Amino acid sequence: MTTPVLPKMPTLDNLHDLDARDPLRHKKAQFVLPGGVIYLDGNSLGALPGAVPERLQRVIHQEWGDALIRSWTAHAQEGRDWMALPDRVAAKLAPLIGADASEIAVGDSTSVNLFKALTSALHVAAPGRRVILTDADNFPTDLYVAQGLNSLLGDRYELRRVPAADVATHLTDEVAVVMLTEVDYRTGERLDMAGLTAQACARGVLTIWDLAHSAGAFEVDLTGAGADFAVGCGYKYLNGGPGAPGYLYVARRHLDTRVALSGWMGHADPFEMARDYVPARDARRFVVGTPMVLSLSALDTALDVFADVDLAELRAKSLGLTDTFMSLLSGDPDLTLVTPLDHARRGSQVSFRHPQAKEAMRRLVERGVIGDFRTPDIVRFGFTPLYVSYADVYHAAQAVLEVAGELRA
Amino acid sequence: MTTPVLPKMPTLDNLHDLDARDPLRHKKAQFVLPGGVIYLDGNSLGALPGAVPERLQRVIHQEWGDALIRSWTAHAQEGRDWMALPDRVAAKLAPLIGADASEIAVGDSTSVNLFKALTSALHVAAPGRRVILTDADNFPTDLYVAQGLNSLLGDRYELRRVPAADVATHLTDEVAVVMLTEVDYRTGERLDMAGLTAQACARGVLTIWDLAHSAGAFEVDLTGAGADFAVGCGYKYLNGGPGAPGYLYVARRHLDTRVALSGWMGHADPFEMARDYVPARDARRFVVGTPMVLSLSALDTALDVFADVDLAELRAKSLGLTDTFMSLLSGDPDLTLVTPLDHARRGSQVSFRHPQAKEAMRRLVERGVIGDFRTPDIVRFGFTPLYVSYADVYHAAQAVLEVAGELRA
Repeated sequence: MTTPVLPKMPTLDNLHDLDARDPLRHKKAQFVLPGGVIYLDGNSLGALPGAVPERLQRVIHQEWGDALIRSWTAHAQEGRDWMALPDRVAAKLAPLIGADASEIAVGDSTSVNLFKALTSALHVAAPGRRVILTDADNFPTDLYVAQGLNSLLGDRYELRRVPAADVATHLTDEVAVVMLTEVDYRTGERLDMAGLTAQACARGVLTIWDLAHSAGAFEVDLTGAGADFAVGCGYKYLNGGPGAPGYLYVARRHLDTRVALSGWMGHADPFEMARDYVPARDARRFVVGTPMVLSLSALDTALDVFADVDLAELRAKSLGLTDTFMSLLSGDPDLTLVTPLDHARRGSQVSFRHPQAKEAMRRLVERGVIGDFRTPDIVRFGFTPLYVSYADVYHAAQAVLEVAGELRA
Repeated sequence: MTTPVLPKMPTLDNLHDLDARDPLRHKKAQFVLPGGVIYLDGNSLGALPGAVPERLQRVIHQEWGDALIRSWTAHAQEGRDWMALPDRVAAKLAPLIGADASEIAVGDSTSVNLFKALTSALHVAAPGRRVILTDADNFPTDLYVAQGLNSLLGDRYELRRVPAADVATHLTDEVAVVMLTEVDYRTGERLDMAGLTAQACARGVLTIWDLAHSAGAFEVDLTGAGADFAVGCGYKYLNGGPGAPGYLYVARRHLDTRVALSGWMGHADPFEMARDYVPARDARRFVVGTPMVLSLSALDTALDVFADVDLAELRAKSLGLTDTFMSLLSGDPDLTLVTPLDHARRGSQVSFRHPQAKEAMRRLVERGVIGDFRTPDIVRFGFTPLYVSYADVYHAAQAVLEVAGELRA
């Protein structure tokens, strides 16, 4: 599957054609989307998968209301017990991120997972290295988590923040860990995960990848890249619902590392109620407290949408949609594209600078085109290939052009 | 409201009488309880409040499905935005635990909250003190969290585990922090929070109270006791649903302490996306990542059940129920009561040792009386005054006597 070759300035007819030939066109029907809206914010909160309400009805009424406490262990043989829920979700995530289920712990927020990843990475890092390297424009919580942990450790480390383009040259033998988000949340620029990981590895630097804007948007191959740790978010392209649990990936070779957040659900035998912590096998040890069953069940069902999705097709469509949007808006004098044109350097999002970005986005939302404003002057549009069509892109682009025109007048 | 005076061996008629005069009798109708079951496990997973399914329907379909990303900030003036959800739940929790809402951060598991409490407590503890004191029979996760944090801090501390009865005599000037669970999860014994906190305070020791088996079962007064930190669980007596978010209490005087788990939702201005962490005012700084909206919304609605509950009446009924259960089972030769008879030393749970505890509980569950087995030989019964009646206690006790008789035969 390759990205469709687009005319320089596609017409609505061209795009209807592409929709008719889209191998993922049946997926849109698996989501509940509001009428009168083109939703280009699935990179912030994914839309509601149609199967989720029924699943939650079952969890609420049958599992909680009727079976009550018995649901923790009921139907364990079919893997439908609540105790196994984190592992079941890990198994569905595994193929999306190129990992083995035993290397994934599901639960807690992305921020808390970053804390787990960083404590473990610093534990296995080469002794004497005292720099935590990161992209200066990394998502704020990634920076804050590093600041908080470093303060807890007596400011033993230096948090070195450099522009993404300079990260490679800063991979020196002072660096213990490099923390990077694969796709920048503002610009949509995608870093070269495989290349940077290889360079880091060659210089003895451990990698932590934040997959918030990657997993579910295109194929991720943590194993292939040789990544050490990764974290991700359940509520963006994975459509797990508002504040859905995040996840932590720990490469097999690091699974024996320290567990700083050691809770009873990561114990080898939680119901033994032993006085000493004995970590569970594999990444399950990084599951800390009692899983939030309602939120986790929504994510579990949301991931089923991906079961029959060819990730190469997903990526091809994502590039087609973002190419289309870029083409259609290329003539506007007030929109400055900040997302790279190069396919390899792009996620599934397109961002522009605009002199009145905040007001532009307000007006767009008013007319049903939902994207995001990001401080100070960015309008950002996310393209979820599962439920955004080429025709949607056309109509959204027309609305952007109209709003930009209004604001110019 | 005082505890009803019970006949030595109450009859079913006596108990029907008590139910008829129970000021909380109308509360049972606010829960969905399965038929044919007497549920004495609300101390492990609270029953489903009747208003929760409708609330979740609204959150799923309207807030997530229709309003999508806009729900984070929509209806902010009425306080119905998702951003304010942790604060709204904190405000409902506050009267149940004797705290101000600004001292409570809602979200994350109890285990993660313990980690936050302990990192902050060690930060403000008197310098040079190197002992973390705890009850040797504390709930395992409390012990594991302390072990994990201590290992992260280079084993700088000693985790000293002593029997609950000896805690007071171990409050020496070596001790930085004492971590205690107010009601023991196995025996149901309640510690003297006010007394122990006063003694700890007098000796310069900070207190962390785990309220897992307290909040929602009886009135807790953290401010009155002078507690420094506390954590609690949303899914036991608070009925917030399986794995509901927990909470952290930080006394006002410690609110300026370090935030080790510093995430973007605890930032003073999350959407400013600033590069440096500036903590939010008050306990909001301890909210770390994006709140799990589905699970948190269930807890929010569940807490409404308490809005018209007089906590003195709740406690009086709890003592009446547990007294009744103890009386009715006092004659069985194989049941050894391990819960204190003294009201002041009891939570809302009754536990017995039994030579075949595991099999006894299996048979009880089979006949619809749901309690818990706790290793090695304990059968445990929780009494939620909101939905357990005196007649329920009678029938449950009869079942226990029958099963004990069968096992003796």
